[in-house]
Amino acid sequence: MSDFGKLWAEISPIGRAGSGGYLRFALTEPELTLRDWFRGQAAQRDMTVTDDGNGNLFAWRGEPWAPGTVLTGSHFDSVPHGGGYDGPLGIVSAFLAVDRIPADRNVGIAAFVEEEGARFGVPCLGSRLLTGVMDPSRAAALTDRDGISFAEALGAEPTGADARVGRLAAVVELHIEQGVALSEPVGVASAIWPHGRWRMDFAGVGDHAGTTRMTDRHDPMLTFAHTVLAANEEARLSGAHATVGRVQVEPNATNAIPSLVRGWLDARAADTGTLGRVVDAVVKSATERAGRDGTTLSVTPESVTAEVAFDTALAARLSALLDDAPILPTGAGHDAGVLSAHVPTAMLFVRNPTGVSHSPAEHASDADCEAGVEALARVLEDLT
Amino acid sequence: MSDFGKLWAEISPIGRAGSGGYLRFALTEPELTLRDWFRGQAAQRDMTVTDDGNGNLFAWRGEPWAPGTVLTGSHFDSVPHGGGYDGPLGIVSAFLAVDRIPADRNVGIAAFVEEEGARFGVPCLGSRLLTGVMDPSRAAALTDRDGISFAEALGAEPTGADARVGRLAAVVELHIEQGVALSEPVGVASAIWPHGRWRMDFAGVGDHAGTTRMTDRHDPMLTFAHTVLAANEEARLSGAHATVGRVQVEPNATNAIPSLVRGWLDARAADTGTLGRVVDAVVKSATERAGRDGTTLSVTPESVTAEVAFDTALAARLSALLDDAPILPTGAGHDAGVLSAHVPTAMLFVRNPTGVSHSPAEHASDADCEAGVEALARVLEDLT
Repeated sequence: MSDFGKLWAEISPIGRAGSGGYLRFALTEPELTLRDWFRGQAAQRDMTVTDDGNGNLFAWRGEPWAPGTVLTGSHFDSVPHGGGYDGPLGIVSAFLAVDRIPADRNVGIAAFVEEEGARFGVPCLGSRLLTGVMDPSRAAALTDRDGISFAEALGAEPTGADARVGRLAAVVELHIEQGVALSEPVGVASAIWPHGRWRMDFAGVGDHAGTTRMTDRHDPMLTFAHTVLAANEEARLSGAHATVGRVQVEPNATNAIPSLVRGWLDARAADTGTLGRVVDAVVKSATERAGRDGTTLSVTPESVTAEVAFDTALAARLSALLDDAPILPTGAGHDAGVLSAHVPTAMLFVRNPTGVSHSPAEHASDADCEAGVEALARVLEDLT
Repeated sequence: MSDFGKLWAEISPIGRAGSGGYLRFALTEPELTLRDWFRGQAAQRDMTVTDDGNGNLFAWRGEPWAPGTVLTGSHFDSVPHGGGYDGPLGIVSAFLAVDRIPADRNVGIAAFVEEEGARFGVPCLGSRLLTGVMDPSRAAALTDRDGISFAEALGAEPTGADARVGRLAAVVELHIEQGVALSEPVGVASAIWPHGRWRMDFAGVGDHAGTTRMTDRHDPMLTFAHTVLAANEEARLSGAHATVGRVQVEPNATNAIPSLVRGWLDARAADTGTLGRVVDAVVKSATERAGRDGTTLSVTPESVTAEVAFDTALAARLSALLDDAPILPTGAGHDAGVLSAHVPTAMLFVRNPTGVSHSPAEHASDADCEAGVEALARVLEDLT
């Protein structure tokens, strides 16, 4: 078995559900188990472990935050029933890459908290806090579906920005590719599409499904349904991506017209102008329909991230180093995207043959993962 | 305060949620509290309490199941955040009506279990079991959203049909009206529209919302949304009612294309032919759309109830007795509808000024409820 296969097998069972996908939500038991595993791996390598008071965990070869350190790593948390590679691949690969470079290099490995936003609603929460993009008191008050706040889950108020981020020479995150754009084992990221999440509350009048005349209804499910189709159409017309993957209904009873349907719009596009036009068009179409349905719509942006262009010179350097590895953009958000505003940042992608992601079917071959480890080792050695 | 107002105040707080609506699901704590209250009311009137082994509770003036007994009553359970009148009004009115008729009359008061189907998915479960319409082993295996079976909740396997139903002289259920069709305090039911619930499972391929190209998607949320709008359109064209009020999504994450969207279609029409045509048209439209979306659809009828025409002579007799009370049909299902296939059955409706039902805003005035009690007393005295 390869080095990768052996280390990967240690964490594969943690948080795996009957679906084959993972339930590794930030600061819940499976993710806490993975953090313990992280500390154990660091100890085996005589790496110092620190946390930043925001829920992000670091293992350091050399002094923590030593000037010129290159930071790598990723996140442990998953979407509900997501794949096992999305996040953990970057952490497992980081430990294996550190084993392959000279012992005198300053390298840090990060396990960022709440990258998916699956528990507290804001993706890249840990890196946003670390870089000061997110206000700690706002983060503290975010709640999960059971009403538990981020501060409660963390056991303390998050401490927010840490200026020592500025001492890093570079950040390099390795991640499984999440589409089918990469046909070689390893690629280099050029940019992350601007993207965001908008909560849409469609409010109507709850009533009896059997007795209320069709003409007397104010049924928000109709406005919601129209909006789902409108989002799909607008995204297709603009070459953007739009998805409604999460819904809450009140009272959610078969024989009751809903009083409220809440849907979340996830939208992404190659540039900020296109993204704004797509979201505006969806909201306009939804609002017009609400007028006809006798319902109301309120839209709340929960997180909106501008386009990230990774450091062009750094990407070119890594591509050249990795035998002209392809350079490609992605529609997925990453902690590296948040850090790129503060530190020269790059990403390495490992091939995903089917492109399936955020699903139990997500997969990368052991050979490609091993190639990813080797590429990351070459990059860390080159940059330190 | 009226007799009605006093007795009503005893149960008003039980199971009331912050919404002002009620969470009185069958065999859960608030409904069990209401059953205790029922036993207490029976004891105060020297009425014998029996249960039928199916979860239905009865209070008897005279011998239980004495030939010629007239059965009244209704149900305690609610839809999620439903109104307080839907069901309990018929039970409270029954006790007050019994107080107003001679003590030698044989009357039974029923509290039927799981009328709404809000916990185990099959409405009128108690009356279906009692009359043998529902197989007890199938009912035993029905589960709620937490996986608890009906048999577990009941504490035993349900016993099924009881032939003593045939000894009843008549069944009269009093219920709040659930539309705006009744403009006088009390009316008499003519018929219940045929109606049913169809579970629609839309299956697709779960994937990443950010990275999956629009053309590569198999997004079941689109097929679901199309079907919601198609159901509304078909119902309007046919003068029927169709509603999608309950949805489940897997994995229900903002940044994941769903792998499964499950929606329930509630459909009702004035006649069985129309109902069948509406449901067929919805399924045809949904299936066509699934073909275009690359998704699949499976439809499971969870309960389908044929038209109920209440005993015409009995309805006419009650209308005449109640000063020519209006006779009107309803789109809502009731235990009385199930019993009407076995016993001469009638329903009394109490006016609902706004017509709102299955919502915290459901309301009837104390004066109209008092008129309902008086009408029920006259009917019980006349029929016994």
